[in-house]
Order: sequence, then C-alpha cells, then structure tokens
Amino acid sequence: MKKIVVIGLGLVGGSLAIDLKKNSQRTVIGVDKSPIHCKKALALGIANEIGDIHAVADADIVIVAVPADAIPSVTESVLDTIGDNTLVFDVGSVKEQVCNQLKDHPKRKNYVAAHPIAGTEFSGPEAAFSGLFTNKINIICEQKASDKTILDKALQLFDELQMRTTFMQADEHDKHIAYVSHLSHISSFMLGKTVLEIEPDEENIFNMAGSGFRSTVRLAKSSPAMWTPIFLQNKANVLKSLNEYIKNLESFKMLIEQESNEDVFTMMQNTNRIKNILDGIVK
Amino acid sequence: MKKIVVIGLGLVGGSLAIDLKKNSQRTVIGVDKSPIHCKKALALGIANEIGDIHAVADADIVIVAVPADAIPSVTESVLDTIGDNTLVFDVGSVKEQVCNQLKDHPKRKNYVAAHPIAGTEFSGPEAAFSGLFTNKINIICEQKASDKTILDKALQLFDELQMRTTFMQADEHDKHIAYVSHLSHISSFMLGKTVLEIEPDEENIFNMAGSGFRSTVRLAKSSPAMWTPIFLQNKANVLKSLNEYIKNLESFKMLIEQESNEDVFTMMQNTNRIKNILDGIVK
Repeated sequence: MKKIVVIGLGLVGGSLAIDLKKNSQRTVIGVDKSPIHCKKALALGIANEIGDIHAVADADIVIVAVPADAIPSVTESVLDTIGDNTLVFDVGSVKEQVCNQLKDHPKRKNYVAAHPIAGTEFSGPEAAFSGLFTNKINIICEQKASDKTILDKALQLFDELQMRTTFMQADEHDKHIAYVSHLSHISSFMLGKTVLEIEPDEENIFNMAGSGFRSTVRLAKSSPAMWTPIFLQNKANVLKSLNEYIKNLESFKMLIEQESNEDVFTMMQNTNRIKNILDGIVK
Repeated sequence: MKKIVVIGLGLVGGSLAIDLKKNSQRTVIGVDKSPIHCKKALALGIANEIGDIHAVADADIVIVAVPADAIPSVTESVLDTIGDNTLVFDVGSVKEQVCNQLKDHPKRKNYVAAHPIAGTEFSGPEAAFSGLFTNKINIICEQKASDKTILDKALQLFDELQMRTTFMQADEHDKHIAYVSHLSHISSFMLGKTVLEIEPDEENIFNMAGSGFRSTVRLAKSSPAMWTPIFLQNKANVLKSLNEYIKNLESFKMLIEQESNEDVFTMMQNTNRIKNILDGIVK
C-alpha cells in the first residue's frame, strides 16, 4: 500500500487527493491546520484518513498544497522528516523563493518544484473535484536539482492526472506567470472594486451585468487568503506587470480623450490576435 | 404578413432576425451596407430577403443594429421614411446621444430606445444564433417619449424573445453601462495587450494561460469596429470609469509595494461580495 500525504486540503490539494485516492493501492492521508477543513475532507471522501505532519515520515509521496507564504517552510519541514525515497512536491504559483530556500537542503533531490496550472475562483475542500487537472499544463522548475528517479515518479503521477508537463527555470516561471495569471486576478479584483464603489444600488449591477462583465470579473470571487501571499511573494514581477498594465490603460485613456478613432481601433485590433494564440493557432 | 426590417446583420441584428423570422407570419428583410454580410445572412437563413433602406417605408417594425456611431443618423433616416404605425427601435449600447438627436423628430413617438444586454466576443452574421436574448435583460430608455401603442408593441416583442425589460433614463443608462460593460472591455483589451507585449514567445502564453486568464481576457477578442464608436460616444462616462479603475490599480500596487498584507487581503475580501451580487443574492 502506497502512502500519499496531502498537506493542505483546499481546492488544489483536495482535487489532487480525490483523483489519487481512486487507485485502491494507495492510502491518502490529509493534513490541514484547519479542523473544519479536515472534517469536511473526510466527509467529502477527499482523504482516507486525517493525520498530522508526522505522517510524512514514512510516506511515498508528500504533496504540499498550502498558501504560497507557507510553502517554503512547510516543504522544508517535510524534507527534514522524510525517508530517502520519498517524492515531495508543492503546487504553488510562485517558484523562485521556495527553490532558493531549499537549494542547499540535504534532501533537495527529493523535491520537485511543480505548478499545475489549474483552479477555479472557488476555494476550500468543498470546491475540490475530480478532473480539475485533466488536460491542463503542469510546469516543473529547476528539474535538474531533482533526483532522476524522484522526478520520474512525479512525471508519472502528472501523466496519470492527464497533465501536460513542461520545464522552466523558476525565475522565468515567476516572470511569465505574473503576466499570464497574477495580473489577471488583480485586473479582475480591481474591476469588481471599481464597479462596487460606483454602484451603491447593487441591483443595477445584477441587472446590467452582461456575460462579458461576468467573465471579466469572475476572478474577483477568488480567495484573498490564497492570493495575498502570491502577490507579495512574487512582488517584483507583479509590480512590473501592473505598471505595464496601468501604462497601457493610461495610453488608451488618452486616445479616447483625444477622440483618436483610428488609434483606438488599431490598439484593439492588434490585441485581437490573443484569440488565435489562446486557440493554439500560433503564427 | 408582417414586415420586419433589420438594418445591420451582425451578431445582434442577425440573432434578432433569426428568432423573429421563426414566426411564419413575418417576412424579415435584411439590410447591410456590406454585400458580404448580406450574402452570408441569406446563406445562413438569417433573413428572408435582402433589401435596402427603402424597405422601411412600409415596414411594421424596423430594428437598427448598426455600429454605435451610425445609430443616430440611420435611425433618423428611418424615422423620416416610415409610416405612422411603424415601431422603430435600436439596440445600441449608448443611449443619450441617439435620444437627444431624435427628441424633436416628428416621428419620435414611433421610436423606442432599447438596449438588449446580450452578446458574445464574436461578430458578423456568422456569429448570430437563435436564443442569444433568452433570459437576458433589456433596458428601455426615455419610454415616455414613445407612443403607448408603439411601446407595447416593443414590449411584446421583447417578451417573445424571453427578455426581462427594465426602464431607465438615457443618461443614467450610459453612466451605469460604462462601469458594468464598457470598462470591462477596456480592462480586458489592455490585459491582452500587456501580455502580448511582454511575451514575445506566444507559445508561453498558450502554455501558461489558465482558465482564469482565458476568462479575463475573453473580451479582448471583441470587434474593434463595434467598440471604438461605443467608447467614443460614451466618452465622458468611460473616462470617468477608467480613471476610477486606474486609481484602484494604483492603490493596490502601492499596498503590494509596501507589503501591507492585511490591506491587500481586505481589499480583495471586500470585493468578494461581487459574487453574491452576480448570483442575485443582494443583501
């Protein structure tokens, strides 16, 4: 019987646990500092049993799925405790800090820095579901710092989840993900804030919100507990992306002020190619 | 046989034509200055026949579904030509300018200023589909300027399309819609632009784009030909909403710079209530 310990039973940890638990050759032990999460995870069948951090000592696989600010220290404690053949990976959205903190750890080779790019705007064990990872991208950083056998074990597990794994340096990952993920969360949160401020009559928002607004503001429903440490841990890249974004909004504003029809048109037309890129029709 | 003339055979005009044509007691005449749109509309069965602007002379209903900048003048020409009992309505996303331009027209009573809030990020006749308007909100502005019988005819038609109609002053409509719709298009377009600029390697965008980014950037696929005149016609409100948005982004940026965890958290947490509002759970 293989023993998998999942630390953090929220959307991502919980969804991983659900899918990995399907193999009856495995026991999934859930660990979470919130007793409510633990109770829910058991009730929802997310984990076979609930344990504490000591459960990692004889685990085959340990998954660290806690908020970004806790990942480096929790992963370090796990590495301090595990046996020689245990695979440990985290699923955080920022990779440079954890990789730096662990780079001289005697068990660094047991660790794989992963970022399965999957999620929804919901959080907690009740948001977890089977299939969250199917056909999604997984990014593994600094893979050469992981032991070959350990890395293969991780790749096999991501294959089993039907993820497509690519490799990247941690600093590159953090830079790109700031633009492609973190910035959209901020743009969405601030859009929601702006609309809430201007519309004291909330019924107006409900009545006038088309599918466009709903889609653009969807991420403003996300968990502040998850996103606050991500923005702060990836501060430099997030600030850079925010600056670029604000600069673009300012220039667009200026073009509208000047009623420069053609430039307003062209700026949007040039951006339309995001469609082909997202559809996978890269030129 | 009732004669309905639809001027502008894009997403909105085309989708209206498709649903209204289902009643075999009606002939739908499509009018569009683009011969390609006309050809496609016929081929796709959007209209029974193609006509020109003279077709409105003996029409029962005329729908003006052209880009925002053309709505006032096209609607005015239509009112110049129609008979006494014709209902004319437009479907534009900006209402004050057209209402002002038509307010002293001898046929003002034949006109209903409507804004069915429905659409997708796609455009042209090929984007039109049956059911676009089902369960959506329709806003009618300055309804007292319309003749009671004409207004009832319009309400009946929106009922038939299964829309929920509400009433609003034109200036109020334009203010609210700037925040709830126009601003989200700009935030999405500029998000797309920012990511395209920072990511010369388009494969990175495709690979790293999670469902969150896809949702937030969806509106950046929208038609520049449709949105340029909307932003310019609703300039004052759009600029005000953009200013508020940029101000909020700047303060959020400052909080991240200062690493004010708690304030970053609170700002997001306060915005989370957009979820209840959009779900219709208004406190």
